[in-house]
Amino acid sequence: MDKASFKEKLSTVDTSSLVDKVEMKLIDLFMNKGLKVGDALPKEVELAEILGVSRTVIREAMLRLRMVGLIESKKHRGAVLTNPDLLSPLKKSLHPNILAEKTLRDIFEMRLVLELGMADLLFARVTAADIEALEEIVETEPVKADSTIFNITDEIAFHGKLYEISGNQTLKDFQHMLLPVFQYVHTSGMLTEPVHSKSFISHRGLVDILKVGTPEVFRNAMRKHLDNHFSRLF
Amino acid sequence: MDKASFKEKLSTVDTSSLVDKVEMKLIDLFMNKGLKVGDALPKEVELAEILGVSRTVIREAMLRLRMVGLIESKKHRGAVLTNPDLLSPLKKSLHPNILAEKTLRDIFEMRLVLELGMADLLFARVTAADIEALEEIVETEPVKADSTIFNITDEIAFHGKLYEISGNQTLKDFQHMLLPVFQYVHTSGMLTEPVHSKSFISHRGLVDILKVGTPEVFRNAMRKHLDNHFSRLF
Repeated sequence: MDKASFKEKLSTVDTSSLVDKVEMKLIDLFMNKGLKVGDALPKEVELAEILGVSRTVIREAMLRLRMVGLIESKKHRGAVLTNPDLLSPLKKSLHPNILAEKTLRDIFEMRLVLELGMADLLFARVTAADIEALEEIVETEPVKADSTIFNITDEIAFHGKLYEISGNQTLKDFQHMLLPVFQYVHTSGMLTEPVHSKSFISHRGLVDILKVGTPEVFRNAMRKHLDNHFSRLF
Repeated sequence: MDKASFKEKLSTVDTSSLVDKVEMKLIDLFMNKGLKVGDALPKEVELAEILGVSRTVIREAMLRLRMVGLIESKKHRGAVLTNPDLLSPLKKSLHPNILAEKTLRDIFEMRLVLELGMADLLFARVTAADIEALEEIVETEPVKADSTIFNITDEIAFHGKLYEISGNQTLKDFQHMLLPVFQYVHTSGMLTEPVHSKSFISHRGLVDILKVGTPEVFRNAMRKHLDNHFSRLF
């Protein structure tokens, strides 16, 4: 390596790790100052002085915080703290064919875990209008439906509606993001062939339980509903 | 606004949205080329030509992909596709006091949902060594333990171990990230006071079920174990 390219390499590494550090130090600083969402941040020149680094480094670190949605610029107020969209930086990474097989399986499992675990949220928050919407979705479901017969659009609509009923926006965003990965794993041949369970519970069965049952009964029914997926995992 | 600052503003906005677009187009391009994790990417000059933009824009977009962990530079090979650490960009956003109260509650709920839903993963993957480790953790648990008596270190060790047993690294990373937020909500006074459940299941009770029970029994026991948390939500 000649001298010039060696120097270039060194300085690139150094700057990057400095900006990394300053980025984390800025977050700590805002937290220590007790700043809340919507509060204006100190000016760049002030931040540079406090942390003892150049304004260029501060600007670069602030740019990164802006990119992950932690701060934004407001007219006449400068940079303010925002409530970050937790999942938006994740979205870029969630392209099925740039994830390792193990990560894809992990995500496939996570959907099953979430749908089994959300029963209490559903029962606490479901409304009459929600039940009506679910009944409309399952209307076209064949009576002897299993997960391979119900069409994919209704399948997605049904499970998506459950996340909506949960009233948990972070959970809902998460599901929205996982959906393409789940579909990819489902159809990729990565998992072994499904075994058809004898005690399958249909979507209609789940709606009935949501109307008159308990979270416990719903969890057990959902487990049976998802049995074809589970049996492909273990 | 004077002419110069107007122009400056305009060009800033334009470049940023162009880099956004190019960033997404690059991902599409890599996917369409069927590139997999570890594959070398086309050179900047080639990418600039394909997308009809300047190398500067390509470089900026590639920098962002590097920052979210989608690509990395390898000696003698240039940029290659990597299996991104899905959650690392998220970590920066997860500082409790820069999240809105609704998001904090969402995250609190998600932990409960995950721990209720993971029973099948635990039973499929638990080993004799895992049981031993769990038994060691609950050794110090008072016999009439409820969640307010068991000390916080053992509490975290116990539940952390369950995530580890799940064998799902993404789930484990997620829990690791959620932990500080969960603790914050737990101690912040944001939720109403806990109601002590009569049918509380201890950590030791959960271990016993993991040894000889079924996922279904474990889910119901975990629901009772977490009842103090659930009763603060609804």
